[in-house]
Amino acid sequence: MKYLRINMSDLSYREETVPHDRLLLGGRALTSQILLDEVPPTCHPLGPHNKVIIANGVLTGSLASSAERTSIGAKSPLTGGTKESNAGGTAGLKMGRLGYRAIIIEGIRDDYQVVVIDKNGVRFEPADELLGLRVSQSAQILMNKYGTQVGISLIGVSGEMRMNTAAVTNLDKDGSPTRFYGRGGLGAVWGSKGVKAIILDDSDIERNKPMDRERFMDGMKNYAQALRENPATSKLYPELGTSAMVRTTNRLGALPTRNFSTGSFEQHENISGETMREMILERGGEGSTTHACMPGCAIRCSNIFPDEQGKKVTTPIEYENIGLLGSNLGIGNLDQVVELNLLCNELCVDTIEIGAAIGVAMQAGIASFGDFEAAKNMLLALEKGEPLGRIIGGGAVMVGKIYGERRVPAVKGQGMPAYEPRGIKGLGVTFATSPQGADHTAGMTIRAQVDHRSPEGQVKLSYDAQHISVIVDSLGICYMASGAIFGKDNFRHIVNLVSGYIGQEITEEDIRAMARKCLRDEHLFNKAAGFTKADDRLPEYMYLEENPAAGTKFDVKDEELDEIGVTSVSDHDR
Amino acid sequence: MKYLRINMSDLSYREETVPHDRLLLGGRALTSQILLDEVPPTCHPLGPHNKVIIANGVLTGSLASSAERTSIGAKSPLTGGTKESNAGGTAGLKMGRLGYRAIIIEGIRDDYQVVVIDKNGVRFEPADELLGLRVSQSAQILMNKYGTQVGISLIGVSGEMRMNTAAVTNLDKDGSPTRFYGRGGLGAVWGSKGVKAIILDDSDIERNKPMDRERFMDGMKNYAQALRENPATSKLYPELGTSAMVRTTNRLGALPTRNFSTGSFEQHENISGETMREMILERGGEGSTTHACMPGCAIRCSNIFPDEQGKKVTTPIEYENIGLLGSNLGIGNLDQVVELNLLCNELCVDTIEIGAAIGVAMQAGIASFGDFEAAKNMLLALEKGEPLGRIIGGGAVMVGKIYGERRVPAVKGQGMPAYEPRGIKGLGVTFATSPQGADHTAGMTIRAQVDHRSPEGQVKLSYDAQHISVIVDSLGICYMASGAIFGKDNFRHIVNLVSGYIGQEITEEDIRAMARKCLRDEHLFNKAAGFTKADDRLPEYMYLEENPAAGTKFDVKDEELDEIGVTSVSDHDR
Repeated sequence: MKYLRINMSDLSYREETVPHDRLLLGGRALTSQILLDEVPPTCHPLGPHNKVIIANGVLTGSLASSAERTSIGAKSPLTGGTKESNAGGTAGLKMGRLGYRAIIIEGIRDDYQVVVIDKNGVRFEPADELLGLRVSQSAQILMNKYGTQVGISLIGVSGEMRMNTAAVTNLDKDGSPTRFYGRGGLGAVWGSKGVKAIILDDSDIERNKPMDRERFMDGMKNYAQALRENPATSKLYPELGTSAMVRTTNRLGALPTRNFSTGSFEQHENISGETMREMILERGGEGSTTHACMPGCAIRCSNIFPDEQGKKVTTPIEYENIGLLGSNLGIGNLDQVVELNLLCNELCVDTIEIGAAIGVAMQAGIASFGDFEAAKNMLLALEKGEPLGRIIGGGAVMVGKIYGERRVPAVKGQGMPAYEPRGIKGLGVTFATSPQGADHTAGMTIRAQVDHRSPEGQVKLSYDAQHISVIVDSLGICYMASGAIFGKDNFRHIVNLVSGYIGQEITEEDIRAMARKCLRDEHLFNKAAGFTKADDRLPEYMYLEENPAAGTKFDVKDEELDEIGVTSVSDHDR
Repeated sequence: MKYLRINMSDLSYREETVPHDRLLLGGRALTSQILLDEVPPTCHPLGPHNKVIIANGVLTGSLASSAERTSIGAKSPLTGGTKESNAGGTAGLKMGRLGYRAIIIEGIRDDYQVVVIDKNGVRFEPADELLGLRVSQSAQILMNKYGTQVGISLIGVSGEMRMNTAAVTNLDKDGSPTRFYGRGGLGAVWGSKGVKAIILDDSDIERNKPMDRERFMDGMKNYAQALRENPATSKLYPELGTSAMVRTTNRLGALPTRNFSTGSFEQHENISGETMREMILERGGEGSTTHACMPGCAIRCSNIFPDEQGKKVTTPIEYENIGLLGSNLGIGNLDQVVELNLLCNELCVDTIEIGAAIGVAMQAGIASFGDFEAAKNMLLALEKGEPLGRIIGGGAVMVGKIYGERRVPAVKGQGMPAYEPRGIKGLGVTFATSPQGADHTAGMTIRAQVDHRSPEGQVKLSYDAQHISVIVDSLGICYMASGAIFGKDNFRHIVNLVSGYIGQEITEEDIRAMARKCLRDEHLFNKAAGFTKADDRLPEYMYLEENPAAGTKFDVKDEELDEIGVTSVSDHDR
């Protein structure tokens, strides 16, 4: 197992062997540790001292179900702090077969390159013909040139323009560039380094083999069984995808509506998962079944949304996109939501941040809530780099500052995902205290059987959930599988999978210790970057104004937040 | 002496008597203390918890020369920290005669009001007819309605749009609305509170009298003598205004040129103070002499710039404006600089922040350096609230974030004034460590006889200068007089002026202690607002890249900066 270091300033590279005691470090735990070890926390995110760290999860490449995710880490231009974002697709598998646990990209340059990695090493090819295009077009050019059997990751026009909302995307197993490392503006950091695309070509390379096959296969079997026995992973997600969540959050008063001014939407049935499934079945075509985004995934939660003629529009339509581009904008028409989603995908921007940004713009009076055409035109302006598009491309906080709007649903500079935190206060705690900024995948509490509107006990709930998130994000397991893994006595199967795959005797406590260290590393980075407890708060208006649908303000105590936020670490922890 | 509290939410007001032991608290020391005492440091700058504090200097209203300045304080939407900005004009004198040391504005509202203060109290009148106009037009309407003998402060379209660059302006003694509280976006805070203008009508109110007339007159006489004996205040400033500085900074490699990429400008002679004086004398008209902006000022550094027909274009053309709107944009034509300056004045924006913002936009390739028409069009877009204008109106850091540009000359969110800090490192220390963000008036070191390019001794120099700034900003004395006051043995005359005016036995040490406390108050506010030593640094590129004209990078040690920055205070100091 190796690390690959690429220097974009002089287009050089070198390999390093992963030390034995670092084999359990993958995904988020690895990106966050390298960030802390190697990147000056106060550096400019687009400057020469920042690094892009692409790290496979520990299991990525093993073909265990739902465990083919890859993380990208960097100092975020959006939050100014530590950032990790992970995605599915095929890149992780190919990178694993090439023998790389991580690719570390250093230096900056002004032109754009395609970085081609294969059994012979790394070569750099000019990317000029790919610039300014939509990602599906760039991806097609790359597939024409390098074939469809390689792993491909790339940025879009947003990354070329170094926008705070710029994502990185992987091609999925069907060649569609729609598996996004969405959050934190990582596409802009790629842009600053002159990396337009990375090709991972594993031709003539042997398949990975688990070091202890028997133990690995035993883990595999029981893990698959756990996924089959869990109602969410075996039925709900495969049928409805994540959009199963619309009815739930609407009922809790937690479906963000009109710039998070309330938590239920009178048209929510028009955009629910159930309605979407009906539309997909009725329209037929490619979209008639859900599918897997990663090789070997048993959950297959990804959908393909067809137009009225049954022709694919885009994939996947996630709950987050419905919440942010639908109810949050007052848009109750699923075809319109899908069209906005498609545009975001093609421009390679984070749908969550863009939805939050357009919501703030509507709040500030730039357009009316519900005005689909206005929202679409903002995205077309973004594509052309026009000033309004640049503002939206800057994210929710930028829009608020530019338009003097104080109701901005964001923490640490990052827009909130589709969970109104006055309605689900455990997620409010995660948004406030996660080193990643407002992020539901950083600590999801919605499945807990508690009163989500009460401030009591939410900090403990979020704290535990934040550790679970680190575990799945570091092992390469999709967050959708976490309910099955952490239910009952199932985690031991993961322990077996990991131990068998890397050939070391790993305990559950080893994995939990890794998660604690990762969160500590991230808080330490943020602290050195200048974060304080003032950054571990929700926006002021959520403390002052009630979410009418939930009937509550946010009222988890500051002192409780500080127990798990950036103030929970001291420099002695380093 | 009273404080006047106005609540804009319900349009109410009340008066409070200034406690005897607070009589030495005026101007910046007073705004900063009230901010720390009353405003939650983490509040949203445009939200209900922020306050606008308008505070006269201790001597303001006394008619001592160059001592009629007023401070405005608030949590800044630009920096997110404590903010004080002060201006001349006639408002301070009128406010003093009305008996108010400070006016504290609380609450927020959506419509706009004119706040009229006279001997009968406060009344509120709708401001609708004033909205959307240039400030000279609004000011004319106000003078038509309330007369020319009242004090008038107002905001422009920038404040109505709550831009980070929005200033507040006072009318000068000739009715020109060109005395700006420029920095920190205080106009946006006025806007959030629905205050379009404040009328200070001192009709039928007796003149202020010093409490100990003899001592006051003795101080007055010797202070006037000191101004006459100092070559800067008696000859240089009256002749050339502040633009005398162009040749000096150009020689030091510290005249910001093309977005602070270097420190000397090949066309600097075209925009020097000497050239300006020649043009004014040659063109004649109103502009043929310099004049005073405040009643009773002996320095009279303000100029009136005429067009080719001798007709006034605007007043005053300051060094900062020449540096930021001239050399920093690569513009070497004084008429063009003056036209940009006029537009900034009319839109009531901070010329420094706007010049820095346009500089970053040019660096990012939005227009070429030297392109006057492009710069002008950006300001016209700002006036109309068009997206590009909104971006420029957001200030230099916003432009950098929106366009993914890492060379942004700003500290704590605030653009640098016209002193390239690699060329004058003492000012670099002030920019880095002042609680006000990058601000030359917060601690000017250029007059010291030292090697300005050496990192040695600059921290001590800046530390002393920062205290001098607080003293003049708190007493109401113009910063232009500080050279004369702190020269020789002259400060005792100020002690006499102050003691005689307020009728208390004040010592020099009392005044110095007040300054130390003020800086401590400001650092404490910032610390609680979330500032750390990471905020006490210059932008990364100034450490990495040389200013070719000065031949140096910025290299004052971090540990030295930390001795006087936000880390120099602890919560026990409160």
